Amino acid sequence: MSSKNRLIYLPLGGAGEIGMNAYVYGYGPADNERLILVDVGVTFPEMENTPGVDLIFADIAWLEARADRLEAIFITHAHEDHVGALGLLWPRLKAPVYTRAFTGNIAARKLEEKGQDPSIIRVVAAYPEKIKAGPFTVSFLPVSHSIPESSGMVIDTPAGRLVHTGDFKLDETPGVGDPFDPALWAEVAGKGVKALICDSTNVFSPNAGRSESSVGPAIRQLVQKAEGMVVATTFASNIARVKTLAEAGRDAGRSVVLLGRAMRRMVEAGVESGVLTDFPTTVPPEDAVSIPRDHLMLIVTGSQGERRAASAQLSRGKYLGLSMKEGDMFLFSSKTIPGNEKGVIHIVNAFSEMGVDVVDDAADLYHVSGHANRPDLETVHKIMKPQMVVPMHGEHRHLREHVKLAAENGFAAAIATNGTMLDLSGKAPRVVGQIEAGRTYLDGSVQIGALDGIVRDRIRLALNGLVMVTLIIDEDDEPLGEPWVELKGLPETGSSNAALAEVLEGDLAQLIARADDKTLADDDKLEDLLRRRTRQVALQEIGRKPEVVVVISRLVA
Amino acid sequence: MSSKNRLIYLPLGGAGEIGMNAYVYGYGPADNERLILVDVGVTFPEMENTPGVDLIFADIAWLEARADRLEAIFITHAHEDHVGALGLLWPRLKAPVYTRAFTGNIAARKLEEKGQDPSIIRVVAAYPEKIKAGPFTVSFLPVSHSIPESSGMVIDTPAGRLVHTGDFKLDETPGVGDPFDPALWAEVAGKGVKALICDSTNVFSPNAGRSESSVGPAIRQLVQKAEGMVVATTFASNIARVKTLAEAGRDAGRSVVLLGRAMRRMVEAGVESGVLTDFPTTVPPEDAVSIPRDHLMLIVTGSQGERRAASAQLSRGKYLGLSMKEGDMFLFSSKTIPGNEKGVIHIVNAFSEMGVDVVDDAADLYHVSGHANRPDLETVHKIMKPQMVVPMHGEHRHLREHVKLAAENGFAAAIATNGTMLDLSGKAPRVVGQIEAGRTYLDGSVQIGALDGIVRDRIRLALNGLVMVTLIIDEDDEPLGEPWVELKGLPETGSSNAALAEVLEGDLAQLIARADDKTLADDDKLEDLLRRRTRQVALQEIGRKPEVVVVISRLVA
Repeated sequence: MSSKNRLIYLPLGGAGEIGMNAYVYGYGPADNERLILVDVGVTFPEMENTPGVDLIFADIAWLEARADRLEAIFITHAHEDHVGALGLLWPRLKAPVYTRAFTGNIAARKLEEKGQDPSIIRVVAAYPEKIKAGPFTVSFLPVSHSIPESSGMVIDTPAGRLVHTGDFKLDETPGVGDPFDPALWAEVAGKGVKALICDSTNVFSPNAGRSESSVGPAIRQLVQKAEGMVVATTFASNIARVKTLAEAGRDAGRSVVLLGRAMRRMVEAGVESGVLTDFPTTVPPEDAVSIPRDHLMLIVTGSQGERRAASAQLSRGKYLGLSMKEGDMFLFSSKTIPGNEKGVIHIVNAFSEMGVDVVDDAADLYHVSGHANRPDLETVHKIMKPQMVVPMHGEHRHLREHVKLAAENGFAAAIATNGTMLDLSGKAPRVVGQIEAGRTYLDGSVQIGALDGIVRDRIRLALNGLVMVTLIIDEDDEPLGEPWVELKGLPETGSSNAALAEVLEGDLAQLIARADDKTLADDDKLEDLLRRRTRQVALQEIGRKPEVVVVISRLVA
Repeated sequence: MSSKNRLIYLPLGGAGEIGMNAYVYGYGPADNERLILVDVGVTFPEMENTPGVDLIFADIAWLEARADRLEAIFITHAHEDHVGALGLLWPRLKAPVYTRAFTGNIAARKLEEKGQDPSIIRVVAAYPEKIKAGPFTVSFLPVSHSIPESSGMVIDTPAGRLVHTGDFKLDETPGVGDPFDPALWAEVAGKGVKALICDSTNVFSPNAGRSESSVGPAIRQLVQKAEGMVVATTFASNIARVKTLAEAGRDAGRSVVLLGRAMRRMVEAGVESGVLTDFPTTVPPEDAVSIPRDHLMLIVTGSQGERRAASAQLSRGKYLGLSMKEGDMFLFSSKTIPGNEKGVIHIVNAFSEMGVDVVDDAADLYHVSGHANRPDLETVHKIMKPQMVVPMHGEHRHLREHVKLAAENGFAAAIATNGTMLDLSGKAPRVVGQIEAGRTYLDGSVQIGALDGIVRDRIRLALNGLVMVTLIIDEDDEPLGEPWVELKGLPETGSSNAALAEVLEGDLAQLIARADDKTLADDDKLEDLLRRRTRQVALQEIGRKPEVVVVISRLVA
């Protein structure tokens, strides 16, 4: 172990994927660095690979084992993929948490939801305010994104200044929250930047990003000419958009209703933290029922087709007394995240059946992205002029493309995915370690490892169905009665046109009758025999090999 | 029952969805019409709603019950969603099957795969050749699509001429297969068209479709400048594209290799049926291994990220001795069908990790759609000048938009989704019935109904996990030993930090000890008691209520 100090970067989540952000920085002697953590986010489960899982976040075992060296946790902004795991993981880390006001409001709720004390959050002002955290001095650098108060982290270390962008776009007129301020960023860059750790999600988008304010006129025009009820959805956290929608409603002479818990909560948080002012007056859903539908504008949760959100509820019928019908309009002021297409399409078709006109963002009129596109990334590279660029937040393809882009413009750069430790002390990033950096699942109330096999078993049950075989063996190691079979998730009848359970029972009874004493006396052998035969018979009968659970009950004398 | 003849249209699949096409036409006295079936396709299962299912197709119970009135089955083209269920459903219908040559080649394989006699297929020539089928006289009208020999059906009936477009686009230079021939279509329209039953999938695409031949130059250029190995994927059935890719490889001095069973089979079918000529010479994979990689062009299956296709295999490592590496290029000459995004992205990232440059169709250079866009639909409406337009093949939103479009241009039109019977005899389509038109699943070797609950049970197992409880009750209705618990797909340890199975066993043992004689004597009561308590304890321990199977073995005296 060297006693020379080094500066390290270790992504635990968000590097090699979109979502679940968690980045460790360290400074000090190798393997004894003092550490800080930037962001502690979640990603969302789906039926394909994580059925029944409630939330997914970074495996923080490495950091937990070094919690005594963790100086602080910084949250760049209040999106779920940056703050969502705070309540779950804070008890395992117990370091002070720093945020700006709006983020702190949401972060506090995350802690409260999990029974943690929200007062551990230290709300701080933006740059130039400084937070000392061991060898690090950290400031929140305001930047625009699709949620208020998103911030880059300016991290001063004895080895030089790091700028961790967080999620960002270059929007000088974001509506709500901080505009991108090139002069401020240039000031930060002035002293020299050792490494720019930079958002990569939109590196494949070839044109400069558009401002949040650019969608206002189109939305206004659309709502203005609508005849029935207007319902619009967007991410609740995109408060600027929610405000734009609400203003469009108000200006068209409509009463504005916020539907969905997240929608109301985000607007509350915006008002409480002071980032949101002049939000149009809203009407509670129970009063909306008595307002003529052509005077209503609902702003609802569920832009991604989430089954329990307001948009999906409306697509199924009444929600809080409100329902859509022929001549109404539904606006997706959002884009569909890959993987959510089917859920969104399902809702669109349900609205179509009601005669509702659905407007989406196919023509790029009613939505803009919150992330920096390729030219925007180049702009930031050029402002910051870092010694090196380390792409973060993106799938491997994004990180790789971002490294190429940086290299084209003459910057040292390297791909580091979750678990890859980079030493940033030198002139270029250098890989100095690889730790196990997997995923942890919140499964009900239990945290389980992604590789524990629990979810794999559930997937197998879903793909294969289940046969349960029970058999009683008496005190003399003789079968008491015959094997009993129960099915779950399998056809009742197979190729022999008899009940599958009965076919199996008959066959297994014969098998047991022929079994030798040695097998009958040995649970493992007996179980194996019954399982293999069950799978074989099922294959003949129904063309598939199910999962089999064998329960042997042995009576004792 | 009226004795007056009527002309009916009844979609069993494809109307209200994309995929699974199956359309019934009938002519004769009400409820005693003579029938024909156009297409008998499949749609594909996924983990979200149909885990473990092998294939999905229309519930043909209605038609099966009237099979004695079914005169013929016509297959418009050889895509899976039009012909894929032929081998499975033909034995339940047993009517003559008419196709053109290429489609017949594929259809015969579909029958053979399911042990049916392929000689029941009657290969016929295109329009003006006529097939008599009861009161119907039917011709195959050549049209362009993304597979050779796609055809509209010209269906003459005593009530007038129907034109069922099948899937189509208006491509006068499709490369392989029939070009769209406006004069021929005008000739067909000449005698007057009662109803145009028309493809709707691309009704939301605002610009006229582009020709298959438009992608050639861009692909050629891309392959020409590539340095390492080039691998390209597209739908195997898009033989024109496969040929374009192969020619681009050959012209760049590369040996062409077809990888994946479907790819080789489709090219074979094209050559055998005479639609494909001058296909570049190919090299078998085993010979490719010894050719320098910068002289290779692989054309592979798996454009939708299918786990077992060649592209996915290459993304995981070696496939038939071939593997990709730094400097190679992978081209998606395809678009990703909604729902397949995650699978495709997974492959792209795997290639990215290998250092492979992935080129997709983000810039609309390397792929064109096979379906008629909005202006193309209007062109066909205008050529055919039908009395009415009946949109088919599309989700509800597509059908609705297509009806709107037809109405704007002055055509009578109506939405009919699967199971809705239209009477086309009058001046406008009129709904005259609604039958149950669900989905059938091929599950292993068994055909099950979508609503049978079997798949629902599997989904529940995946979402909730499973607890199995077994209990033996002796001859005197007394428990013999204690309840035994097995878990599947659940965390081993819960909030009390003891093994969940043991916590459950302890708790249930106490419960049983306290149970009264009446409960112990009644299987239903006992089962209910054990199930409810198991779910309750699990909720406390692991925060979720699992599926519970209780097996009570009762010893008899």
